[in-house]
Amino acid sequence: MNLILFTEEELKEGLPADDRRARHLLTVLRRGLEEPFDVGIINGRRGKARLRSRSGDRLTFDFELTDLPEELFPLTLMVGLSRPQTMRRILRDATSLGVGRLLFFTTERGEAGYAQATLFRSGEYRTHLIDGAQQAFSTRLPAVRILPSLSAALAEEGEGGLRVAALDNYEADRSLRAGVAAWRDGPDEHDTGGPPSTVSLIVGSERGWSAGERLVLREHGVPLLHLGGRVLRTEVACISAVSIALSMLGFLDRS
Amino acid sequence: MNLILFTEEELKEGLPADDRRARHLLTVLRRGLEEPFDVGIINGRRGKARLRSRSGDRLTFDFELTDLPEELFPLTLMVGLSRPQTMRRILRDATSLGVGRLLFFTTERGEAGYAQATLFRSGEYRTHLIDGAQQAFSTRLPAVRILPSLSAALAEEGEGGLRVAALDNYEADRSLRAGVAAWRDGPDEHDTGGPPSTVSLIVGSERGWSAGERLVLREHGVPLLHLGGRVLRTEVACISAVSIALSMLGFLDRS
Repeated sequence: MNLILFTEEELKEGLPADDRRARHLLTVLRRGLEEPFDVGIINGRRGKARLRSRSGDRLTFDFELTDLPEELFPLTLMVGLSRPQTMRRILRDATSLGVGRLLFFTTERGEAGYAQATLFRSGEYRTHLIDGAQQAFSTRLPAVRILPSLSAALAEEGEGGLRVAALDNYEADRSLRAGVAAWRDGPDEHDTGGPPSTVSLIVGSERGWSAGERLVLREHGVPLLHLGGRVLRTEVACISAVSIALSMLGFLDRS
Repeated sequence: MNLILFTEEELKEGLPADDRRARHLLTVLRRGLEEPFDVGIINGRRGKARLRSRSGDRLTFDFELTDLPEELFPLTLMVGLSRPQTMRRILRDATSLGVGRLLFFTTERGEAGYAQATLFRSGEYRTHLIDGAQQAFSTRLPAVRILPSLSAALAEEGEGGLRVAALDNYEADRSLRAGVAAWRDGPDEHDTGGPPSTVSLIVGSERGWSAGERLVLREHGVPLLHLGGRVLRTEVACISAVSIALSMLGFLDRS
C-alpha cells in the first residue's frame, strides 16, 4: 500500500480503528499523531494526511489534497471470465498497470456461473481495484463491466476504438508486436505519429476461443495475434499483452 | 497443467497413486487405460504417454517421446530477493515466459534472511519451476542461483551479456522501451539486425535500490530504465519487463 485510498466521506469523518487501512497505518507505516502519509480520494485528488486524533475505536485525520489525479491509459482490456482467483489478480494487476476499462465476458468454453460469482455480486471486486491503485500510487479505478458474451463485449466497446487485438495461441499467424507495429507504421489514417486515441486488447479465457467466437472476431475485423509459442496463464497473458501494447505505443515513456 | 513433467526414472517406473500428477491425470484429465496424454522429461524430450496399468497404489505408463526440447530464451532475469510469496510467483511465471536463467540476490534494503528461506533450502522452489514449465507446454527449467549481493549477481552474469537494464522508477530518465530501442537501433557493434545473443534484466526488490547499489550499477555501465510512472509489484514488474524486452527483440514473433 504505497498510497492509502479513502472515499471523501471517510477522509472527513475518520476510520474505525479496525479498518484495514487504519491497522496498516498504525502497524506497518507506524504513523503517530501529526506524522504525514500519502493519501488519495478514490478517483480524485492525492496529497498528504496526518493523524489528528486516535480515540479508542476511531482515527480522525487532517489532510491536504494538492495533486490532481492523472488519467488512466485509454486502453480497454477485454477478458473471458475465469476462475475467481484468476479474476482477482487481473482486477488488481490491470489496475496497477493503468488499464482504463475492464470488460469481462462469458465465453462459450468458460463456466456460465462465473458472471454470477460472489466476487462481483458482493462488490468484493472493488477492493482488488483499490489494492491495485494503491500499489501504483494512483487514485483512479478502471471502469468494470460484466457482459454475457464476446459479441456483447465488442458491442459495448463500440466501433470507436482504433485497435483491437485478440490473443490466440492456436490460430494467430502474427505476434502482438507485429500487429501493433503494422498499425503504428501503416500508411493509413492511423499513422499520425502519436499513440492511438484508444486501444482494445481481447484475451480469451483459459480454454481458448470456440469456433463461433473466432467467427465473431473475424466478422468484427479483429486480428488474431499471439504472444509467442508458450502457453501463458490468463493473468500472465493479460499483464504481458498490456505491457507490450502500452510500451510499443509510447504510453510508458514518461516516468 | 498442459503438459505433465516427469523425471526419466518416474516415467519408466511409474508414479504412486497419491502423487499430485497421478491424481491430476485421473481426476482432472480423467484418462483411462490406453488414453494418451502429453508428457515430457524435465529438460528433455516431449511426447505422448498412456496409462498401462493401475494397481492399488501405483500407475505405470507406456510412452513415446518424439519431440526434441525447444530452447529457453537467452534472457537472464536478476531480481532482488523478496518475500517467499512473491518469489513463488516469479519462479513460476518467469519459467512460463521462457526466461533461461534466474539470479536472485540479497539487496541492501531487503531482508537478509530471504536467502535462507525454506522455499530454497527445502527444494520447494523447483516445484514452482515445474508448474511454470507445465503451464507453458515446455520441458525446460531455467537455471536458478541465489547470490549474496547485486555485485555478486553481476559478477556471476559476467561481461558477455550484450544488454543489461536495471529497472528503477525513481532515478531512471529513460524507459525500458527507449533503452532497448537505443541498443537495437544503435550504430554500433550490436546492430546486427537480429536479436542479441544474451539479454539481462535487473529488477530491484520491493523497497528499491540503495545508493550503494545504484553506484554498483553505474560502475558496471548498467543503464537505469523505467517501466512508466506507475509503481508495480515486483512480480508484475518482472512479467512486464520480460515481456517488453522479449517482444521488442523479436523473440516472441514465432508462435
